[in-house]
Amino acid sequence: MRYEELTIEGRNAVIEAFRSGKTIDKLFLLDGCQDGPIRTILREARKTDTIITFVKKERLDQISETGKHQGVIAYSAAYKYGTVEEMLKRAEEKGEPPFLIVLDNIEDPHNLGSILRTANQAGAHGVIIPKRRAVGLTATVAKVSAGAINYTPVAKVTNLVQTISELKKRGIWFVCGDMEGEQMYQLDLTGPIGVVIGSEGEGVSRLVREKCDFTARIPMFGNIDSLNASVAMGVLSYEIVRQRLQNADKK
Amino acid sequence: MRYEELTIEGRNAVIEAFRSGKTIDKLFLLDGCQDGPIRTILREARKTDTIITFVKKERLDQISETGKHQGVIAYSAAYKYGTVEEMLKRAEEKGEPPFLIVLDNIEDPHNLGSILRTANQAGAHGVIIPKRRAVGLTATVAKVSAGAINYTPVAKVTNLVQTISELKKRGIWFVCGDMEGEQMYQLDLTGPIGVVIGSEGEGVSRLVREKCDFTARIPMFGNIDSLNASVAMGVLSYEIVRQRLQNADKK
Repeated sequence: MRYEELTIEGRNAVIEAFRSGKTIDKLFLLDGCQDGPIRTILREARKTDTIITFVKKERLDQISETGKHQGVIAYSAAYKYGTVEEMLKRAEEKGEPPFLIVLDNIEDPHNLGSILRTANQAGAHGVIIPKRRAVGLTATVAKVSAGAINYTPVAKVTNLVQTISELKKRGIWFVCGDMEGEQMYQLDLTGPIGVVIGSEGEGVSRLVREKCDFTARIPMFGNIDSLNASVAMGVLSYEIVRQRLQNADKK
Repeated sequence: MRYEELTIEGRNAVIEAFRSGKTIDKLFLLDGCQDGPIRTILREARKTDTIITFVKKERLDQISETGKHQGVIAYSAAYKYGTVEEMLKRAEEKGEPPFLIVLDNIEDPHNLGSILRTANQAGAHGVIIPKRRAVGLTATVAKVSAGAINYTPVAKVTNLVQTISELKKRGIWFVCGDMEGEQMYQLDLTGPIGVVIGSEGEGVSRLVREKCDFTARIPMFGNIDSLNASVAMGVLSYEIVRQRLQNADKK
């Protein structure tokens, strides 16, 4: 996952970026533009579920670094994304049961960065995020991750529910962090596991929650609503670490 | 701890604020100004260890809301600070062994806000911060705390080492979170406790660390240096929660 923050400008360059499989985090298109190459770009963008923003010429001129945008500017991801397969391979190589983090609707780059950092330290094999309604691997995320972005793979998937379903077939259990559920200390979290963390406002979405095998509750004694998402992820992940260490001691 | 963000301007107003015992988080003084009232303000500021910034007239004019600053502007704390006594009383009223959080050099308002939030949810009785080299209860801290600032008292003390010494005499044990130390799961953290968290860059300072009764290590398996301070605080605090709940179950 080497660093390569890129602003790609011009029709051919953007089409080529899509065709070469680069992850485009954001696409700016000149509002009202409808010719052939632009339609090709739109088609490629839709194929990969890229977020498209239609803007005026002034805005494009402002974003442009070369002054030759031809009505199209794309931001490619600052870091390369990994794959879920890569994560499972990592676990296998280490001889550990898979330990994945799944983020549902985390839109704050500080939270994503901090979660990457904790995922790395807690020994998770990777972080899975959805393409839509989520922050990507931006420079801020990289900075807050304190370098973890270089070690812990992040996979961007089109449909979280589908990815969870597929992983369940391969023996991974999913635990969803939620206010309602069994106290996390009572659950056995030592097997192959995916921890699902939702956004602070909305929590884990219904469809994703329904796919989870169990719900873990962090005990709370306070007067307020919840914990910060990255703290909740840390607390839940370290309960897994504790149980796994304890389990290893027993053997 | 009700809300009262205040910019206090003018010599008499600022002198009066100091004398009434208001916590001044920051004091701006006109550079080179040396007359009687200013000297009085300087004396009061030093008595309370207030952070003083000497600035040019243009800067004061810019900060001023009334246009009548007379060379002096003070920011009073956005929230009222609590006291350590208040925290111990809370613990006693609840029939719980004291559970305090001590922050050594946490300068980032996001970390302080997030720590306040976690302290509230984990059932800690209060958070102790030093006067120097630390962020105060600013509006950002309040916002990030998600309301916890209204419930969990924060005490600002002149000398952390001295405060820890006094609390030790009253039966509280201090555990310092550090990379070197015993794995936290091996320690008994169920008694009256103060958890000391250091800044991410420097950790807990030597003098404070030497006062601690034991050092707890969060196990880390990653490729990077440390955890975010507010995540580390959350993980360590919840290990205390877990041990206390387990202990209560046994009885």
